[in-house]
Amino acid sequence: MGRLTMIGLGISDERGISIEGLERLKGADAAFAEFFTSILTEGSMERLEALCGRRIEMLDRKCVEDEDRILSSLREHEDVCFLTAGDPLAATTHQEIRLRSLKAGHRVDVIHSASIYTAAAGAAGLQHYKFGRTTTIPFPEGDYLPTSPLEIILENRERGLHTLCLLDIQADRGRYMTVHDACSVLIQMAGKLGTEKIDPTTMVVGIARAGRNDAKVAFASLSALLSEDMGDPPHCLIVPGRLHFMEEEMLDLFRIGRSG
Amino acid sequence: MGRLTMIGLGISDERGISIEGLERLKGADAAFAEFFTSILTEGSMERLEALCGRRIEMLDRKCVEDEDRILSSLREHEDVCFLTAGDPLAATTHQEIRLRSLKAGHRVDVIHSASIYTAAAGAAGLQHYKFGRTTTIPFPEGDYLPTSPLEIILENRERGLHTLCLLDIQADRGRYMTVHDACSVLIQMAGKLGTEKIDPTTMVVGIARAGRNDAKVAFASLSALLSEDMGDPPHCLIVPGRLHFMEEEMLDLFRIGRSG
Repeated sequence: MGRLTMIGLGISDERGISIEGLERLKGADAAFAEFFTSILTEGSMERLEALCGRRIEMLDRKCVEDEDRILSSLREHEDVCFLTAGDPLAATTHQEIRLRSLKAGHRVDVIHSASIYTAAAGAAGLQHYKFGRTTTIPFPEGDYLPTSPLEIILENRERGLHTLCLLDIQADRGRYMTVHDACSVLIQMAGKLGTEKIDPTTMVVGIARAGRNDAKVAFASLSALLSEDMGDPPHCLIVPGRLHFMEEEMLDLFRIGRSG
Repeated sequence: MGRLTMIGLGISDERGISIEGLERLKGADAAFAEFFTSILTEGSMERLEALCGRRIEMLDRKCVEDEDRILSSLREHEDVCFLTAGDPLAATTHQEIRLRSLKAGHRVDVIHSASIYTAAAGAAGLQHYKFGRTTTIPFPEGDYLPTSPLEIILENRERGLHTLCLLDIQADRGRYMTVHDACSVLIQMAGKLGTEKIDPTTMVVGIARAGRNDAKVAFASLSALLSEDMGDPPHCLIVPGRLHFMEEEMLDLFRIGRSG
């Protein structure tokens, strides 16, 4: 039976891999990576190949989900590595790979890494234990605009809790939702739901490129963020609940569009 | 003005540091670390000093919170690194250091890392967006037993959500709460609260040493976990809400005390 090591690359570039992850990667018989669930800085894979001195086969969604490329590699090789951006077990697709590998009798080791789930709260200066359920804001498809993300935000806010909103990534179509898009979608959702609890004046935190040297955090109203250029993806958004004074002090440093 | 780089070491040992973190550490004028909020495998610091070829000054809670050792170092040096276990911004103490440094006019860079906040859910095979608010289970002090952690668990469960329970760490007293302790405390809390929604038959997930090669995940009733040896700390616990079939399939692999 083989051993699968699932290695997280973190949220910035190839230098987000841990020393332990790099050691495993160097010694593996076969190495794969996927970037349809999340992205790293451009050129990271080429530089990682140079860093570890080996080829890494890039897999698209079809190879991972339908063709089971990793499981078939485990039948041929003793030591297989699978690389993902962020934490290697945060996406359901990755848990499926782990489950299938374990059920086939292979050993699965996990080398965790930085993930937007933890990093976003930290970047914004907000306390983890005050977050409610996380939601994802999807691109509207034609007239279809589900309001469930906003309902989760409102449910959390009612209890004083912050909400981390992940923004849709459709890597295969080159589409990465921006803070601008997300603010516009939230305002639309509020209209559709007929609520006044969220409106263009609601203060939110836009975060771009968390964990990179050019990370940007902006604390502003939904409408102010509609005209703020947050730069390259990936972006995410936090809708804060009740703020502790230290959280307020930190957000103040990230406030934009302040008058005077 | 100086630059503070806050570097996470992840959740296993010194090899959890990223390539980027190691590069920064090697080039810094001064380097500090603290391990009162979280721990790594024994000997990690000595091995990290060997790895980066420099001294790292260990700070206790007093040096960090009262004496502001880091801020005074930033007045003397241009390039200061501060190392923590887990993600460098997950603890409130670390956010305070960041806030004070930013307010003093220094630049603060953050090199995120694996954190129990993300890793625990992944290790258990549970989906992140189905977690409600996180809680911490404290050691009972004499007769004092707050029931708020259980209230958070019940609130999450009512909405079908999982709860991550961090377990008390009192590093200065060498006390690390175990899954065994936590199960016992939860049963006591249920008695005090007079609820039957949580009882000794409630199924929970015990996790020990998440992210290490000897990580252990155990899916069992609160009472069964009372007699399960989970080994060395750190431990944490997840009280699941409604399970998706894939989550169930994964937890089945971690089930202990199964009859037949």
